[in-house]
Amino acid sequence: MINPHRYCVIMCGGIGSRFWPYSRSSRPKQFIDFLGTGRSLLQMSFDRVLPIVPKENVFVVTNEMYAPLVREQLPELSEAQILLEPARRNTAPCIAWAAYHIAAIDPEASIMVAPSDHLITRESVFEQSIVKGFEFVEAHDALLTLGIRPTRPETGYGYIQIGAPVNDEGICKVKTFTEKPKLELAEVFVESGEFFWNSGIFLWRAETIIRELKNHAPDVAGVFEKGVGMFGTPAEKEFIGANFPACVGISIDFAVMEKASNVYVECVEFGWSDLGTWSALYDNSPKNRDTNVTQNCNVLAYNSTGNIFAVNGEKLIVVDGLKDYIVADAGDVLLICPKAEEQRIKQMVNDANLAFGDKYL
Amino acid sequence: MINPHRYCVIMCGGIGSRFWPYSRSSRPKQFIDFLGTGRSLLQMSFDRVLPIVPKENVFVVTNEMYAPLVREQLPELSEAQILLEPARRNTAPCIAWAAYHIAAIDPEASIMVAPSDHLITRESVFEQSIVKGFEFVEAHDALLTLGIRPTRPETGYGYIQIGAPVNDEGICKVKTFTEKPKLELAEVFVESGEFFWNSGIFLWRAETIIRELKNHAPDVAGVFEKGVGMFGTPAEKEFIGANFPACVGISIDFAVMEKASNVYVECVEFGWSDLGTWSALYDNSPKNRDTNVTQNCNVLAYNSTGNIFAVNGEKLIVVDGLKDYIVADAGDVLLICPKAEEQRIKQMVNDANLAFGDKYL
Repeated sequence: MINPHRYCVIMCGGIGSRFWPYSRSSRPKQFIDFLGTGRSLLQMSFDRVLPIVPKENVFVVTNEMYAPLVREQLPELSEAQILLEPARRNTAPCIAWAAYHIAAIDPEASIMVAPSDHLITRESVFEQSIVKGFEFVEAHDALLTLGIRPTRPETGYGYIQIGAPVNDEGICKVKTFTEKPKLELAEVFVESGEFFWNSGIFLWRAETIIRELKNHAPDVAGVFEKGVGMFGTPAEKEFIGANFPACVGISIDFAVMEKASNVYVECVEFGWSDLGTWSALYDNSPKNRDTNVTQNCNVLAYNSTGNIFAVNGEKLIVVDGLKDYIVADAGDVLLICPKAEEQRIKQMVNDANLAFGDKYL
Repeated sequence: MINPHRYCVIMCGGIGSRFWPYSRSSRPKQFIDFLGTGRSLLQMSFDRVLPIVPKENVFVVTNEMYAPLVREQLPELSEAQILLEPARRNTAPCIAWAAYHIAAIDPEASIMVAPSDHLITRESVFEQSIVKGFEFVEAHDALLTLGIRPTRPETGYGYIQIGAPVNDEGICKVKTFTEKPKLELAEVFVESGEFFWNSGIFLWRAETIIRELKNHAPDVAGVFEKGVGMFGTPAEKEFIGANFPACVGISIDFAVMEKASNVYVECVEFGWSDLGTWSALYDNSPKNRDTNVTQNCNVLAYNSTGNIFAVNGEKLIVVDGLKDYIVADAGDVLLICPKAEEQRIKQMVNDANLAFGDKYL
């Protein structure tokens, strides 16, 4: 029997610009079947929490423009389970709204917050970890974040330094949150055994996060305090339309986690990647004999290794003499770029849209 | 006043496999606006002969499957000017049929035969050269081929070695035809001044080529001899349908030019390329600042030089770190291949169609 006071908030508002042009603002990363499993990353995120929280307690927070995609991909959700943001305002306002909304429905609620576009390969370990996390935040007045044991000195992630353990189950006080480190520092982090990747997966009781928002992010909490009495009622939609856009855009890490004193980390290992880069996608995808990765396309490769081919539709790619490239085709745009240069893609998107009037966003 | 006994036969049956997938069997090279001029190579071939022969004396010989494309691109032609081959049988049967057909209409005809998919940049020199050639074959019982003065030791062309000059106008006896040479030999050829590129452009009187076909290619001529009396009449179509496919597939060079004794070469220089390879197309196309060539597409290039981008439709290509490649996109197939490896494309087409059941021919 699943605890009926457990809730899940799936954050689904990202625009996936790092995977342009395969992921477009009209169909961002979380809506794509990136791993060729037949389920999009959002659908996989939803499937993954069903053993943990009641289906009707899963909320998806997304931008208004993605409502049709969410409805199409998750027909199991009622309209009331889709929270539509009228503007993009980073994670703190998203999380605050969801917390106020759920608290109005169930004052005893405990909530897991998770991104919609991450990969988790060991789902049963994930399930055990989340259940442990729920039990912890239900027993303590705590903000809990999941820290992933690092497997390499990754410079693309933030790290969490752990403090004293509070139990035998891998939960510790948080000592510090760190920015993305340079390689030398990341190597020291991994060596030390004290640093874990910041996964962006959180657990807390609704009342705890609301109180901490009021303490540390009063400008955000203040917007939603005005709506108390309206959450979970027909008045909520109009209230959000009028007030949500007035929130500052700020991350939950910066607004609350780095400031609050009751912040804990659960150290976990469940095959996690944020799939935040083409290289991460490449690393996490099955490879063929030539060490190429193909997404939704047939590839005939000659003297070509280490590439990732991502193409919408039934396209044949014939390639010779290409090593460690990204080849991404979205119908009206074709990108060919070395994996090592992928941090430049954002600039390329800007250049393309400056040159062609936002036609290729 | 244009001589009304002068005719032109444009050979337009090629399938353009070397430019796969940009050129497909459903829309081969000669039907594509390869140079971005607004006219296809076939249309340019037609335009080029209009100052030389009467419009109604231009015949296009093509495969039945390309009839709609020819009609669309050359609406100036009457149906009688389009000779539709029921099968692909190389150049000798094509040329033989056209000769018998034209001889039936005009026994005094002299004929220029030209491919439909070559580039000629200096059209007024071309015009003068062809007129000179017509005058020669009208005055002599000769088979005349045009030899292009080589500008580099090209290994992709056959060469013609010239013999004794027969006039002051650059016309010589042919000493030998050669196969495509290796580079060392090609260098010797160019150095010598005695070798010219074999252009595949021919001039002769109808009666001369018919007689030489009977002498040297009786198996080909024999097929058409049976039809004498039917050419230029309503019976021709049925005759060709029944008999043309029985011809052996053989080139006019091999069937006649290398065997006949009255073979001459006119040495010309009019900016010719057979555009037979991506590299030749690259060399003959206007380049942008980055030395890239783009066909029908917008390209944003970073650290990329010496490439040729050929894409059907309004597509944006964003490319980083690519040097001397062919990028050709035909909607259902994308080819990425170093220019230096383009001789392997034929094998790739075979591999693709073996793997996917002729879907990508």
